[in-house]
Amino acid sequence: MTHQEDLTAYIAAFVAELSKTGVKDVVISPGSRSTPMAMVMSEHPDLRIHVQVDERSASFFALGIAKATSKPVALLCTSGTAAANYYPAVIEASISRVPLIVLTADRPHELRDVGAPQAIDQIHLYGKNVKWFVEMAPPEKTEDMIRYARTVCARATATASSYPAGPVHLNFPFREPLIPIMGEGMFELVDRAGGYVDIQTGHLSLSDETFERIGQELISYRKGIIVCGQIDSSEFADEVIALADKLKFPIIADPLSQLRSGAHDGHYIIDAYDAFLRNEDAKESLKPEVIIRFGAMPVSKALTIFIKENRNARQFIVDSGAGWREPSMSASDMLYCDEAFFCKQVKSSVEPKNDSAYFDKWFAVNNLAKDQLSAVSIVEELSEGKLFHQLAEMLPEGATLFVGNSMPIRDLDSFFLFNNKKIKVMANRGANGIDGVVSTALGVASVSQPCYLVLGDLTFYHDLNGLLAAKLYNLDINILLINNNGGGIFSFLPQANEPKHFEKLFGTPLDLDFRHVVEMYKGKYDLIKDWSHFSTVFAENQIVEGLKVMEIQTIRDRNLTEHRDLWKSVSREITTKLKGDIQ
Amino acid sequence: MTHQEDLTAYIAAFVAELSKTGVKDVVISPGSRSTPMAMVMSEHPDLRIHVQVDERSASFFALGIAKATSKPVALLCTSGTAAANYYPAVIEASISRVPLIVLTADRPHELRDVGAPQAIDQIHLYGKNVKWFVEMAPPEKTEDMIRYARTVCARATATASSYPAGPVHLNFPFREPLIPIMGEGMFELVDRAGGYVDIQTGHLSLSDETFERIGQELISYRKGIIVCGQIDSSEFADEVIALADKLKFPIIADPLSQLRSGAHDGHYIIDAYDAFLRNEDAKESLKPEVIIRFGAMPVSKALTIFIKENRNARQFIVDSGAGWREPSMSASDMLYCDEAFFCKQVKSSVEPKNDSAYFDKWFAVNNLAKDQLSAVSIVEELSEGKLFHQLAEMLPEGATLFVGNSMPIRDLDSFFLFNNKKIKVMANRGANGIDGVVSTALGVASVSQPCYLVLGDLTFYHDLNGLLAAKLYNLDINILLINNNGGGIFSFLPQANEPKHFEKLFGTPLDLDFRHVVEMYKGKYDLIKDWSHFSTVFAENQIVEGLKVMEIQTIRDRNLTEHRDLWKSVSREITTKLKGDIQ
Repeated sequence: MTHQEDLTAYIAAFVAELSKTGVKDVVISPGSRSTPMAMVMSEHPDLRIHVQVDERSASFFALGIAKATSKPVALLCTSGTAAANYYPAVIEASISRVPLIVLTADRPHELRDVGAPQAIDQIHLYGKNVKWFVEMAPPEKTEDMIRYARTVCARATATASSYPAGPVHLNFPFREPLIPIMGEGMFELVDRAGGYVDIQTGHLSLSDETFERIGQELISYRKGIIVCGQIDSSEFADEVIALADKLKFPIIADPLSQLRSGAHDGHYIIDAYDAFLRNEDAKESLKPEVIIRFGAMPVSKALTIFIKENRNARQFIVDSGAGWREPSMSASDMLYCDEAFFCKQVKSSVEPKNDSAYFDKWFAVNNLAKDQLSAVSIVEELSEGKLFHQLAEMLPEGATLFVGNSMPIRDLDSFFLFNNKKIKVMANRGANGIDGVVSTALGVASVSQPCYLVLGDLTFYHDLNGLLAAKLYNLDINILLINNNGGGIFSFLPQANEPKHFEKLFGTPLDLDFRHVVEMYKGKYDLIKDWSHFSTVFAENQIVEGLKVMEIQTIRDRNLTEHRDLWKSVSREITTKLKGDIQ
Repeated sequence: MTHQEDLTAYIAAFVAELSKTGVKDVVISPGSRSTPMAMVMSEHPDLRIHVQVDERSASFFALGIAKATSKPVALLCTSGTAAANYYPAVIEASISRVPLIVLTADRPHELRDVGAPQAIDQIHLYGKNVKWFVEMAPPEKTEDMIRYARTVCARATATASSYPAGPVHLNFPFREPLIPIMGEGMFELVDRAGGYVDIQTGHLSLSDETFERIGQELISYRKGIIVCGQIDSSEFADEVIALADKLKFPIIADPLSQLRSGAHDGHYIIDAYDAFLRNEDAKESLKPEVIIRFGAMPVSKALTIFIKENRNARQFIVDSGAGWREPSMSASDMLYCDEAFFCKQVKSSVEPKNDSAYFDKWFAVNNLAKDQLSAVSIVEELSEGKLFHQLAEMLPEGATLFVGNSMPIRDLDSFFLFNNKKIKVMANRGANGIDGVVSTALGVASVSQPCYLVLGDLTFYHDLNGLLAAKLYNLDINILLINNNGGGIFSFLPQANEPKHFEKLFGTPLDLDFRHVVEMYKGKYDLIKDWSHFSTVFAENQIVEGLKVMEIQTIRDRNLTEHRDLWKSVSREITTKLKGDIQ
């Protein structure tokens, strides 16, 4: 038995099993040590291989595919700092519960910690940020070690996918020569051709008695709200709406809850709370007795404050991933249970309410706020608010809208209101980084079309390297680049009152003409002149293939003023209305 | 005492002490959580603040300054994946022994692991890759906590700087409001104005008896060689040459040993070994009885194999950092001692040898190889070999030459031969990554002029973001971009014989016209047409300020052939000569 036969058989068994467990996509960064795994993967007929030179972009690209498909995606890189470049995406995957299978090639044991080239300590490289780490056994072709390779692979996929989903890391020591022996039938599995071990991972559920008790408790409250943060379950939307209908509770729907768009009934959806929960009269008048929370913490700071101010309310948090997504320190009941299943079971345990004056108040205030917000649509200058306000109308049916962190996600929250289209809204809201957003969106675009990305200039700059994927793989993506020449969010924070170091430390204007880089990546670039030009280009780009960047230049200070004016006008109207109601 | 007073006093004490310990440069990436530290640092009169948006580039930029100055540089970023982007540079700093002080802002304890925005687990974020990790106490203005902040700061600088130098990580929990109260005299230290605690870290030394014994042993060998890998000690060069002169041992000088350039005597310097140690006759004829190694393992694979093939030789390894930089598994004596001091002490314990036939043979073979290698200078096509061969002549006195990994460092090794100029040669040879090279070189350029960077297209692409620093801070740098449209090194490896997946997985042609991106960063770009054009542009750029990129397009296959032909001709001549000697 030669070393190369051992190497080939062991890796081929692993790769065959990887495909059997349902993994379709592999993102590979070029390198020497990873050669045997890269070559064997490329030989497999059912794996889709994406090659990316920058491992940071590669890992976010993989994250994007995994987010869009809810299936684990494999990553492969060589030894050394290549693997360390995955760290930000691994952490994002961990917190946002996205399944990734990180495969790193390593020097064999005798070349570790001895100053050998391109050798770093890869054992537990990502610390507690992966659900599982395995230092793989050196390749061998014995029956036991083939079973081992297949079993570890099956466990890796299952662990990455089970609730809460997340990244796993397998580290492979490979000795030279690194060239596998390719051949017909190398992926044929001698026994258990359908996969070595079928792993069913289950979801969390509570007892019927508990559902019954919670149902009775919930129905006993007159003033209840449901808060939905980011959640990606496909059945959840219908179930939570059915529950809301039974309880007559409004649903405070975060833009990432997937509840602001869809064929479902929008009646219960509260979408303008980020504007009106800044008003004291509204907050006073809408105080809840009970809150049910699903998904991650919502984006809106106004909502977070509202929740904190209502700590006397009973607060149920339902989490299929058994985590603790509760920075407000106000939870009274933590329920570890699949969210859609929870809604279904509780719903069937209660009698429907007929109506609710409390819900009507939310409904009225929300409509009032929406009316005020629609004032942005008459703004003549290019502005963030208007852009997000009209996106719901402009986006084609079935589109995916990926949104950058910092200001875009907040503007989305404020201005992207309920619509009956099928639009999936995504963002990297695990750690809220400005890193890797371009690549994540391109990963999404590689499996989900049409795809739109809205992001700011600092976020765009941070992952310019990600654009290479669009060029190499002819990916279609529409990028709306909001360029306010720096960090717009800081204008909203207290440091804006400290002019001395502001521009240097926070404003950080880049003064970059992004046309150059878009052209380098063979994209179509348009500098948007005005709203009518925007409409034209937006429509035109729907039939243009490839990378398209529409740059919308805005002014940080004006954006700040526009937002503050709008919130003031919302607030004024609400106060007038609520005082009027009382009189 | 308000929170902001606590915050300000604690941070100001830390920052004042940081400056007292000798830290000059701080590289800051914009963020919200890090606001108090960033603002206080900017207020300090003696700190040089560099702002970089992409934390990966920021950390390599800091690495470059620290490498060039041999002084610790501080890094500051906000909470979340921002800090994870430092990981590759932190690992590189750890392995290549460069002092970095990584400061990360974090959420306070009550906002950790509860799904708060931009919060990740930052405790021991870099694992064992930092020499010291401290979870800082929350800011307080008590006398004890001010002493604490100052002491930890002094220890951080001392730990980062002491042998072996490396990165340390301090994690600061900051609560809102994050705005410090700036004021006159905020950095005035109430007591011990010159610094809180003076830390002297010492260097390793052996006993006089040990030096004496080793000296006697060394002098007893007829056939000895000194091998110098990467080493940055400023006194080392003179001391090792004096030792070689006494022992009559040749010095096999890696390009990063700082021995291939300099005012010192080149008589003992062997610089063409990478070419002639591929020849069996040379290797047979030059077998050593004793090897003394200093610094990291050399770049040359031929040399590594030669060392491995001579495991019967006594092998002394001298390491001031008490590490184990010895992948050849052939060391017989590991000596933990300052390298320059070792040379000095051993030298003074031995009587000088008069001559050595063994040394003469190394000298003759080296000269023969150099003659053959000089054939590259008549090549008409643009080629890597000729480029590095003529660089020694073209570079201005006092220049720093930073070289990318993969092929450039190997070509440098083969073709950049001894010269009497003052040229400092640098590379990221800790983990040999292709990441962060542009930024590291720009960090070097910010403190050391004139600065030249030679790198390949994949390495250039990997850190294009780094170029922003050149634009924002008007840094002068001359970049020689060797564009062979992909991963040239793989053509030299066995996978080149596997055409099926080669271009996709290893060749990875990017087909990028880099002119665009250089123009975006306001640099001067020249596509080099031929050697005469190269000379003209090279000379012209010496008086042009800012970012200058000279792109030299080469062909991967031709480069491979050229190298192989040269090595063959070296080998042929050596065999003829050595056989002639024997007859």
